[in-house]
Amino acid sequence: MHGSRLPSSPIGIFDSGVGGLTVVRAVRAALPAEDIVYLGDTARVPYGSKSPETVTRYSRACAAFLLERGVKLLMIACNTATAHALPALSSSVPVSVIGAVEPGARAAHAVSRSGHIGVIGTLGTVRSGAYEAALRTMNHGAVVTTQACSLLVPLAEEGWTDGEVAAAVARRYLAELAARDPAIDTLVLGCTHYPLLAAVIAHAAEEAFAHPVRLVDSASAMARVARETLTAADQLAPPGRKGSLRCFVTDASRLDELAPRFLGEPLASYELVDL
Amino acid sequence: MHGSRLPSSPIGIFDSGVGGLTVVRAVRAALPAEDIVYLGDTARVPYGSKSPETVTRYSRACAAFLLERGVKLLMIACNTATAHALPALSSSVPVSVIGAVEPGARAAHAVSRSGHIGVIGTLGTVRSGAYEAALRTMNHGAVVTTQACSLLVPLAEEGWTDGEVAAAVARRYLAELAARDPAIDTLVLGCTHYPLLAAVIAHAAEEAFAHPVRLVDSASAMARVARETLTAADQLAPPGRKGSLRCFVTDASRLDELAPRFLGEPLASYELVDL
Repeated sequence: MHGSRLPSSPIGIFDSGVGGLTVVRAVRAALPAEDIVYLGDTARVPYGSKSPETVTRYSRACAAFLLERGVKLLMIACNTATAHALPALSSSVPVSVIGAVEPGARAAHAVSRSGHIGVIGTLGTVRSGAYEAALRTMNHGAVVTTQACSLLVPLAEEGWTDGEVAAAVARRYLAELAARDPAIDTLVLGCTHYPLLAAVIAHAAEEAFAHPVRLVDSASAMARVARETLTAADQLAPPGRKGSLRCFVTDASRLDELAPRFLGEPLASYELVDL
Repeated sequence: MHGSRLPSSPIGIFDSGVGGLTVVRAVRAALPAEDIVYLGDTARVPYGSKSPETVTRYSRACAAFLLERGVKLLMIACNTATAHALPALSSSVPVSVIGAVEPGARAAHAVSRSGHIGVIGTLGTVRSGAYEAALRTMNHGAVVTTQACSLLVPLAEEGWTDGEVAAAVARRYLAELAARDPAIDTLVLGCTHYPLLAAVIAHAAEEAFAHPVRLVDSASAMARVARETLTAADQLAPPGRKGSLRCFVTDASRLDELAPRFLGEPLASYELVDL
């Protein structure tokens, strides 16, 4: 099944659930001619609260599924899966792998003036130390403070992206972060779901810090890295065509309701698979 | 492996995660001589947002695991697993099966005066219609109104069981429920996690309804049914001994932190298994 990769081969993107459709959206905007195969492991979502071993096992299964479909590039939309499984996948698959952490870290490094960077994410992402490691490679003196925000994913999935509850949740997490490093000037949204809560997070950050804080979303940073990678490998799809999106999920519950929030448009079709 | 069941055989209890330890706690209080084997499918938690097919598949795997350990009685602590998989399990396993829905429904039926009963639970439990079906069997004229409360499980797991956020979340869900049936006088906590939020739920119910509302927790109702079932089958463990608890999980992340909240005491040990 592992034929040679051609410029016309698709890009493979996987995520623990539907949140990775924010990355699909950014890749389609940056690379409209590319075909995309997406896999959302919705039967086992979330990864963010699970152990490195479990997340790595699930990520390997996702990667194998996409490689069987002949992808020329593998993108891990999920920050937790990136944090735990990127090294294992990079060294074992025959295509380039782009994770969610390094592009976001690089974007944060580029905009931060104080070198004090905050990262919010799931417990798994925060515990992994992946953002600290990536940012310290770029700037030895970087001060990186992370904050697990376990309620933000369920909040985004419930559709409560503004109003009293969202404000109170964001305020509590951002206040905890500000108490630990008041000098933060850049905040990485280290989870695919958080862009849906960007407005309420920005407002809470404004309240918690006495100065402006820049928000960095990794989806568009990942799309930029994908374009660079395919250009360098001479594997860009022929221009002038419209790329397709093929979407696989392991559980279809609430898909019609949730997918459009992340993709920015209705999901034309999907296929249910058992990994 | 499926030897004959003896009074000295253990009771098997499974759940999507650690929430079912509230049922373990109730069973140990009601039946202190019984050995218990618990399985928490923490690698695939939560079940509440997943489809009936996925939940049934996972529940069958959990039941098979416990039956291989020679349990004399199978208890499904998870309301969502009960709602989707109880009929399939009851008809295919060689021991009695006690679910989470029927005991809670029976307790609610016993205390309600108006016959107007509210049920809060996960999306999966609410969509299944299991509580409506059970309550209408007991009282044809029962008026049952359900409300999915997707944020309550992550809230309980975050440990935010009081304070501003918990109050705002509970208020919003209970207000939606009261708007749909202001005559509710009994509220079933249709999820293993909700007893941890009982105080904040009771307070929100007081605000939302103009009269007292009785809260019904299914864990103690399940323990009563277990005692009745074992007594009728002459399978009670010999009295005067102290039963053991053997705990299996599919992922150990945060177990030491979460388990005591539900069990009411530290978890002495656990074993990690791959289903």
